Amino acid sequence: GFPGNPGLKGARGESALSYLSAFSVGLSELLPPTNTPIRFNKFFYNDQRHYDDVTGKFHCVLAGVYFFTYHLTVYTKDARVSLYKNDKPVMFTYDQYQESNVDQASGSIILKLQAGDKVWLQIFGEEEFGGVYADNTNDSTFSGFLLYPDMSVAARRR
Amino acid sequence: GFPGNPGLKGARGESALSYLSAFSVGLSELLPPTNTPIRFNKFFYNDQRHYDDVTGKFHCVLAGVYFFTYHLTVYTKDARVSLYKNDKPVMFTYDQYQESNVDQASGSIILKLQAGDKVWLQIFGEEEFGGVYADNTNDSTFSGFLLYPDMSVAARRR
Amino acid sequence: GFPGNPGLKGARGESALSYLSAFSVGLSELLPPTNTPIRFNKFFYNDQRHYDDVTGKFHCVLAGVYFFTYHLTVYTKDARVSLYKNDKPVMFTYDQYQESNVDQASGSIILKLQAGDKVWLQIFGEEEFGGVYADNTNDSTFSGFLLYPDMSVAARRR
Ligand SMILES: [Ca+2]
Ligand SMILES: [Ca+2]
Ligand SMILES: [Ca+2]
Repeated sequence: GFPGNPGLKGARGESALSYLSAFSVGLSELLPPTNTPIRFNKFFYNDQRHYDDVTGKFHCVLAGVYFFTYHLTVYTKDARVSLYKNDKPVMFTYDQYQESNVDQASGSIILKLQAGDKVWLQIFGEEEFGGVYADNTNDSTFSGFLLYPDMSVAARRR
Repeated sequence: GFPGNPGLKGARGESALSYLSAFSVGLSELLPPTNTPIRFNKFFYNDQRHYDDVTGKFHCVLAGVYFFTYHLTVYTKDARVSLYKNDKPVMFTYDQYQESNVDQASGSIILKLQAGDKVWLQIFGEEEFGGVYADNTNDSTFSGFLLYPDMSVAARRR
Repeated sequence: GFPGNPGLKGARGESALSYLSAFSVGLSELLPPTNTPIRFNKFFYNDQRHYDDVTGKFHCVLAGVYFFTYHLTVYTKDARVSLYKNDKPVMFTYDQYQESNVDQASGSIILKLQAGDKVWLQIFGEEEFGGVYADNTNDSTFSGFLLYPDMSVAARRR
């Protein structure tokens, strides 16, 4: 007999575009308190709602490699800030303040996260308020996004 | 009869890679004027030509979620800079200058854009020239790239 | 006789997600020397090992468009830093230091790289040590990641 028909065309390759996670938020209070997550309440982008402004934490829903960056206005006193991953500070930014010399301090980091991990910024220090500041013409911001999803985890999700 | 030949290999997965938009530019004049888009004329990357150095604006061609970041040298006076989206300032950076203390100020933001949207940086203030500076060994830069294309729009483009 | 069975289904299409390159590193010595690549020895992420802490250089393995960013603590003296691509400085950051006023300086750039290209940070100046600093609660960092692989090169790799 004749040979059979050709097989079906293979499945479409894996898309990178099903895996979205990004947030970009700003400070809306003048001087956030120390030793607790900074709560950013001004939203530039948070469509997936992975940043929670009640806790002040980014909640990782999609396992993978993430980029985070922050830009802080230093005013009234020195700024000492840590980026936390799950209750552990992993990166530190320090900028001294002098009168009439408002400064900007910033940081960036790439971290591999599991679903359920949390990432946030926190001011440390003895005093009740740190030196991180924002007002109507002066932002302090925190942004992050998924660079590469963990495909071994993504495969199990399908 | 014999089985048919294997089917063709599947199509390439929908890739984020068909959707390129990135620019990275630097200031080449010493002190740009206030209240008009800063025109960056030094090109680190602009292959898609989505940044227009004549207008000083990034022109969004591919709808989607974008990341923007800038790093400015603060010299001669205080720097007050806004990031604009379509004639509206959406983010503000302020850094005070003091003599013999050149500073660096920076910002980052994630924004969802439609095709035709424009994004740029602008110095505000009463004076003719602001405190943003660059020279041969001292850059002030503006960069941005497409994080995630808007696939509902992308599907209509195919 | 009857025709044979249909052929096997074709192979899955190429994935967009096979192209990973990212690193995020911090300084672990107090004051790195001038006129040689800064060696960052604290690893936040380097799974592909494209950043080499022995040479202090990022080694491009996958041709494409990359984003790089750095955030440096300015302490003890003025900081003058260049980002190098293959022995040529392509971007410069300058921040002056004044006593009791630790500062932060940062930069970002997007560059198109070929496999084999190297990218690093270097302090310039007459003195043996520059003004870039880090300690246990004060990071200086360098991060980068592949934004878009060069698909013409990627196709040849298959
Ligand atoms: Ca300042
Ligand atoms: Ca300074
Ligand atoms: Ca300072």
